[in-house]
Amino acid sequence: MVTVSDKLKRSASHNIISPKGYKAAGIHCGLKHKKKDLALLVSEVPANVAGVFTTNVIKAAPILLSKDVVQNTGKMQAIIVNSGNANACTGSQGADDAYTMQKLTAEKLGIAQDLVGICSTGVIGELMPMDIVKAGIEKIEVGSQLEDALDFSQAILTTDTATKHTAYNLKIDGKEVIIAGVAKGSGMIKPNMATMLAYITTDANISHETLQALLADTTEKTFNAITVDGDTSTNDTVLVLANGLAGNNELTPNHPDWNVFTEAFKAACEDLSKMIAKDGEGATKLIEVNVTGAKTDVEALQIAKTVVGSSLVKTAVFGCDANWGRIICAVGYSGMTVDPETIKIHIGEIPVVEFGEPILFLNDQLTEYLKENEVKIAVDMGIGDGKGTAWGCDLTYDYVQINATYRS
Amino acid sequence: MVTVSDKLKRSASHNIISPKGYKAAGIHCGLKHKKKDLALLVSEVPANVAGVFTTNVIKAAPILLSKDVVQNTGKMQAIIVNSGNANACTGSQGADDAYTMQKLTAEKLGIAQDLVGICSTGVIGELMPMDIVKAGIEKIEVGSQLEDALDFSQAILTTDTATKHTAYNLKIDGKEVIIAGVAKGSGMIKPNMATMLAYITTDANISHETLQALLADTTEKTFNAITVDGDTSTNDTVLVLANGLAGNNELTPNHPDWNVFTEAFKAACEDLSKMIAKDGEGATKLIEVNVTGAKTDVEALQIAKTVVGSSLVKTAVFGCDANWGRIICAVGYSGMTVDPETIKIHIGEIPVVEFGEPILFLNDQLTEYLKENEVKIAVDMGIGDGKGTAWGCDLTYDYVQINATYRS
Repeated sequence: MVTVSDKLKRSASHNIISPKGYKAAGIHCGLKHKKKDLALLVSEVPANVAGVFTTNVIKAAPILLSKDVVQNTGKMQAIIVNSGNANACTGSQGADDAYTMQKLTAEKLGIAQDLVGICSTGVIGELMPMDIVKAGIEKIEVGSQLEDALDFSQAILTTDTATKHTAYNLKIDGKEVIIAGVAKGSGMIKPNMATMLAYITTDANISHETLQALLADTTEKTFNAITVDGDTSTNDTVLVLANGLAGNNELTPNHPDWNVFTEAFKAACEDLSKMIAKDGEGATKLIEVNVTGAKTDVEALQIAKTVVGSSLVKTAVFGCDANWGRIICAVGYSGMTVDPETIKIHIGEIPVVEFGEPILFLNDQLTEYLKENEVKIAVDMGIGDGKGTAWGCDLTYDYVQINATYRS
Repeated sequence: MVTVSDKLKRSASHNIISPKGYKAAGIHCGLKHKKKDLALLVSEVPANVAGVFTTNVIKAAPILLSKDVVQNTGKMQAIIVNSGNANACTGSQGADDAYTMQKLTAEKLGIAQDLVGICSTGVIGELMPMDIVKAGIEKIEVGSQLEDALDFSQAILTTDTATKHTAYNLKIDGKEVIIAGVAKGSGMIKPNMATMLAYITTDANISHETLQALLADTTEKTFNAITVDGDTSTNDTVLVLANGLAGNNELTPNHPDWNVFTEAFKAACEDLSKMIAKDGEGATKLIEVNVTGAKTDVEALQIAKTVVGSSLVKTAVFGCDANWGRIICAVGYSGMTVDPETIKIHIGEIPVVEFGEPILFLNDQLTEYLKENEVKIAVDMGIGDGKGTAWGCDLTYDYVQINATYRS
């Protein structure tokens, strides 16, 4: 878990276009029945970019193009996003369609095509209705009002029940720097990315290479530490744009304010990750699993992910059932180093297992705790110093309902 | 998948005590409110035994004792099973209680303690109410009527909705040999064992070592190829007793009837596996995933397990939604060798993906097919000769209901 220093406070008054030089828009173009389904984010100048993408071997067509921009151009000036259709498993026609979306956006904005990122989310395996998308790209116009930022955050959603954004403002070299992020979930979320899209903007001056390394490191402990249903999507993308308009000296690990920046960056990623987990399909509760005393940090994170991903733990939390046996069972099949006799487990503040054996606890007290909308489970492995945190949500009737009828 | 020759027909008239020399019983002792919860199986003479057990590091107390009988004694004459309490995560008291159950059963039957197998299934982490269990062991009396076999198969159940049994009779050296099996599921079922118990009896003459090797090999493609919810239990056990009373010459891979025996044995294991998958918690349908053309058999099986274990595939099947995109997505994150451009997918007999691209199909026809209570998905990877089959079930409202309120 990221420990945020006292100085760092989330800013409620900033959003994805608050960093200098960004504009956004979100409109309804017709991929969905009524809701907004096309979003555009633009930076005044080409921004240094970092990106992480799904680990699924089956990658959606837009992923390949955006990855190319991140890896080969190293800069990005605009991101076009549609929801409602994932443009995944759509063969060569899908690749052509993604290319066309990127090209039309570049032409509209009068910028080079290899400065345009492209993301799609929605149903897999259906061809993109390109007439609708073309008309949408013609119509969409970015702006710099709060409303434009909100429109963007709405237009990227699929089954999400709420928009997800966060922002921090900080001083680097005495200059104001803003880091802001927006994301969508909410099914197919599991370790190693998910049907999640996240966009982070900043006006900080930081190179493509430094930003990419920071993002890769941070992703492991934030976006890759959440799970909703164990499915890894074909379309997951996190993109970070840094356009340097804040005017600070270039940020590197040697910069005196490096820690200030990275702390805020990690906090923004953690905020969005928790929001995605909490808004998992059908979820009523955020579940946070903190593992300590594991052999290594990597093992701790894996154990935390296994527990938070267990269908039986998730349904027990939904039912407010203090069935800690399912927690220790999941620890046992995590594949990591486990000594059954040294495990301690707390649910909230209440100890339930000590040295592998059950502790007498007040069941009513635990049931009350489990009614809260954020449930914390702590597992002390009693072996080493490794620690890690993962987030997920409960498994509910609504998850089944949403996914049994997704296309109907 | 096991291919059963035409000669081999499942026998509807045989059961777990049809092989010579076996008796069984099942009674209500009080661990559950009303249903039967204590079962006993006894062979007239010590039988050669084979066993496979959960891979979960957290193993229930009875597992350790039964494993010891299989590995050190190599023979077993009785199996005592209780449902309602798993005696898992119960520390040293749990170990003492399991030992006591084994000892009381041995004393009652007048046999050596190290000839008694012991299994428990039910809630994890609650101490066994030993006064109830002791009274139950005093009371239970095995018999050789059909009713006794049915009582046994009922008393081992937890959330199962039906008993599960199969039987084959064959000729070995011209003598009649019977192989019969009984099992329970039905949650916490996933590759590498589950909260599943299976018992197979035979009167064949086969050594402990040969039987153990045959069981280990067969388990990979049957009991380890089913998944319900991705959780691996602390209590899984398969035990096979072979008491030799059929009087055939010892079965080894060199015996002329070896194939007859192993085919029937594998068919019995596959029958029970499919019954467990079909009766997964809350399930309405059996899902069978056949993977061909994979790099190796091992990779094919892993891909099949990944697809059948996907929550999104499972909910789509429940909703009769031909969302094949979720199938190819699961193939993509299986971690196995995948070439997106060579994949072909059939749902039932209907092709939906060819060479990685969608095929136009009649959605209504597929929706009709998905309403059947057995759904087959075929994935041809187009890479090599590897093939494998896995079984699972749909994910339904009832799964959530059962598991959110299991202890209430």
